[in-house]
Amino acid sequence: MTIDHTHDPALRSWVASANVNDTDFPIQNLPYGAFRRRGTQEPLRIGVAIGDQVLDLKLAAQEGAWSPETAALLAPLAAGDLNAFMAQGPQARHAVRVALSAALSEGSEQQSALQPCLVPQVEAEMALPCRIGDYTDFYAGIHHATTVGKLFRPDNPLLPNYKWVPIGYHGRSSSIVVSGTDVRRPLGQQAPGPDGVPKYGPSQRLDYELELGALVGTGNAQGSPIPMSEAEGHLFGLVLLNDWSARDVQAWEYQPLGPFLSKSFGSTLSPWVVTMEALEPFRAPFTRPEGDPQPLPYLDSPHNRERGAIAIRFEVLLQTAAMREQGLPPHKLTESNFRDAYWTVAQMLTHHASNGCNLQPGDLLGSGTQSGPEAGQGGSLLELSSGGKQPLALPGGETRTFLQDGDRVFLRGRCEAPGARAIGFGECAGTILPAPAVPAA
Amino acid sequence: MTIDHTHDPALRSWVASANVNDTDFPIQNLPYGAFRRRGTQEPLRIGVAIGDQVLDLKLAAQEGAWSPETAALLAPLAAGDLNAFMAQGPQARHAVRVALSAALSEGSEQQSALQPCLVPQVEAEMALPCRIGDYTDFYAGIHHATTVGKLFRPDNPLLPNYKWVPIGYHGRSSSIVVSGTDVRRPLGQQAPGPDGVPKYGPSQRLDYELELGALVGTGNAQGSPIPMSEAEGHLFGLVLLNDWSARDVQAWEYQPLGPFLSKSFGSTLSPWVVTMEALEPFRAPFTRPEGDPQPLPYLDSPHNRERGAIAIRFEVLLQTAAMREQGLPPHKLTESNFRDAYWTVAQMLTHHASNGCNLQPGDLLGSGTQSGPEAGQGGSLLELSSGGKQPLALPGGETRTFLQDGDRVFLRGRCEAPGARAIGFGECAGTILPAPAVPAA
Repeated sequence: MTIDHTHDPALRSWVASANVNDTDFPIQNLPYGAFRRRGTQEPLRIGVAIGDQVLDLKLAAQEGAWSPETAALLAPLAAGDLNAFMAQGPQARHAVRVALSAALSEGSEQQSALQPCLVPQVEAEMALPCRIGDYTDFYAGIHHATTVGKLFRPDNPLLPNYKWVPIGYHGRSSSIVVSGTDVRRPLGQQAPGPDGVPKYGPSQRLDYELELGALVGTGNAQGSPIPMSEAEGHLFGLVLLNDWSARDVQAWEYQPLGPFLSKSFGSTLSPWVVTMEALEPFRAPFTRPEGDPQPLPYLDSPHNRERGAIAIRFEVLLQTAAMREQGLPPHKLTESNFRDAYWTVAQMLTHHASNGCNLQPGDLLGSGTQSGPEAGQGGSLLELSSGGKQPLALPGGETRTFLQDGDRVFLRGRCEAPGARAIGFGECAGTILPAPAVPAA
Repeated sequence: MTIDHTHDPALRSWVASANVNDTDFPIQNLPYGAFRRRGTQEPLRIGVAIGDQVLDLKLAAQEGAWSPETAALLAPLAAGDLNAFMAQGPQARHAVRVALSAALSEGSEQQSALQPCLVPQVEAEMALPCRIGDYTDFYAGIHHATTVGKLFRPDNPLLPNYKWVPIGYHGRSSSIVVSGTDVRRPLGQQAPGPDGVPKYGPSQRLDYELELGALVGTGNAQGSPIPMSEAEGHLFGLVLLNDWSARDVQAWEYQPLGPFLSKSFGSTLSPWVVTMEALEPFRAPFTRPEGDPQPLPYLDSPHNRERGAIAIRFEVLLQTAAMREQGLPPHKLTESNFRDAYWTVAQMLTHHASNGCNLQPGDLLGSGTQSGPEAGQGGSLLELSSGGKQPLALPGGETRTFLQDGDRVFLRGRCEAPGARAIGFGECAGTILPAPAVPAA
């Protein structure tokens, strides 16, 4: 893949809001999402974000003037089935990108036909962008792994396999929700107190995790690994992912088979999938720190070394209920960059399929928590509060070690590079609701 | 739920093969499966096993004489959608069971209408019975957990949480296959040798795991736990599950987040779902060994104490390629009983939803490996061969520590109780194919 006209920073859209400097959705981005008009129950439609609007692809497929080839490629999108479009692979996606970029460009003859196909984003109720069959969460943030490792295993923070194996584990698909969905504080079993008996009740150490999510495009047949040279062709695009975590439940349950109920009560996804094509200008070399082992041959490729990394600047913001009442804006807790991940998304995908496991269109690969290398760049409260020992001060006088009911967490991601138009991921937000009642025995 | 006329051991079917003693599918069983006629590509149909036949429910719904209520309940089955039927819950299922039992009974007026709706099982190509959204694997075999714990952690076999938490972890849904599907030996990363560099290649320690699978019927809303008193109402039925495992990959990858690629290359399910109704005569008290803690209140109920366990006798058999060539039958490696599980399926389900995680119709809960309490009752080769140190002798002069290419593993399950007609699960079988080539770098 190469930088082409669709990335030209001078390109402007006839949708005026796409041309303002700080939009996440200039014409160079064109991410996909699923939506319905707010307040209706109509079937989900696939749309493309442009400025503060959504181009409704069901309408656009009808109303626009498209070549027969483009019309055929648009058909699954018009039918509301992003998974079917994902399965078509990068060439189809690139062709649609080129067509949509031209149609939305300033001076396009399509403006009058497509203008009525725009829905203001404030009127669009977003849903998960696709059907997520399987969700896998990796652990590719070495700074997170090291800091958390110290809390759980002070004598053994980074295990011997970490620098060789893109560590990952299966997550829960059913409880993934789209940004804006409230998340109920989980109940869970917690380690025994002095009486030797574990407790079951609301988690007292509820946390977020700042992650990137990669959505699989074309899949592979069971028993057929995906070589690194083909990995990028199986990736559809990226989203933001908040892997909410109940640390007290996690600490008690996670041995020997890994985290389970400490994670499966909910995970929040941003609604707009930024395609791999849109991310081309932000690719960066993948390097290993001096002295670290190079990846095994099955996790290595020239493309991955030269362009495997992606520079995405992340932010986490928190707004408590009290802050909202006082009119205080969300407060930035941390920032980090996906460039610092220890493994690339291509390596995660290839490792996942390296045993013959079949990936399918719409499968979600989480990156693991993306903490930065510096103190204060933790991608979770567990890190920022040193395991709950050092409360963070918030505007308005509150403090936090872990999340309180009413707290709203925002993840943001933005890509900037010299000579490129900046693009963003929109928002991944969720508010904590009180725990349900403990069921009667 | 109670024992009713459908369990009467004297009940006989006009399908003669259902009346022979050793059939797994007498009229008292009536398990559901998905099939098409072998060699065709027609859409999957739902059928009920009866003797050596399948009652095609698409045809049966058309041809039989059913009350309007029964006809409505049969509709999702006639449409080939077991998940929709699962979602209807136990009362619907019981009503259909009563209707099918009457229609298939000796002397039924429906015989002439339904006879043409039978398909010989040898002509039916079975598929997975339903869409499995999420697959979770528990670890409820305490004898397995203890034996394997000793191999992985000699000083610490059973962790402090084991007797309090129904330990479980998320599994891979996409690679679950139906009995009879060949399974390719996985490639995978294995611990470093003397050179300090891990290897990537075919697993040398490939194993099976004898498990029971529970399929969820009705689901729950996210954020709403399922109390123990309602757990049984959310269970649809049980299957056999072979959780193939690459022990060398597992040993190297599993810290700190649990098994991943050592399991996700394939899991094999038996095709026939034995419903909770059919299992009623085989329920048994759930007890804890003297001195062990009782379950926390959220995992306890009178019904669970009185009838939470289920007596299912398991067998594992192995037939190597050489044994097939010599005409030797499968050789029994082990047997165990689900009555010995440390947690009941209701406890697994309630624990799973105890954090608010939403379960959905068709979700699969694996029981973990079901080893018996005695030496030689290990539910995996890891146990039977003491971690590969003690080869097992096979008929024909071969030995095995772990599985070789061409080996075929059979799981069987059968329920017997005084005064009840015995029922069975059919077969869960798979043959190991050679590993794929290591992809070029």
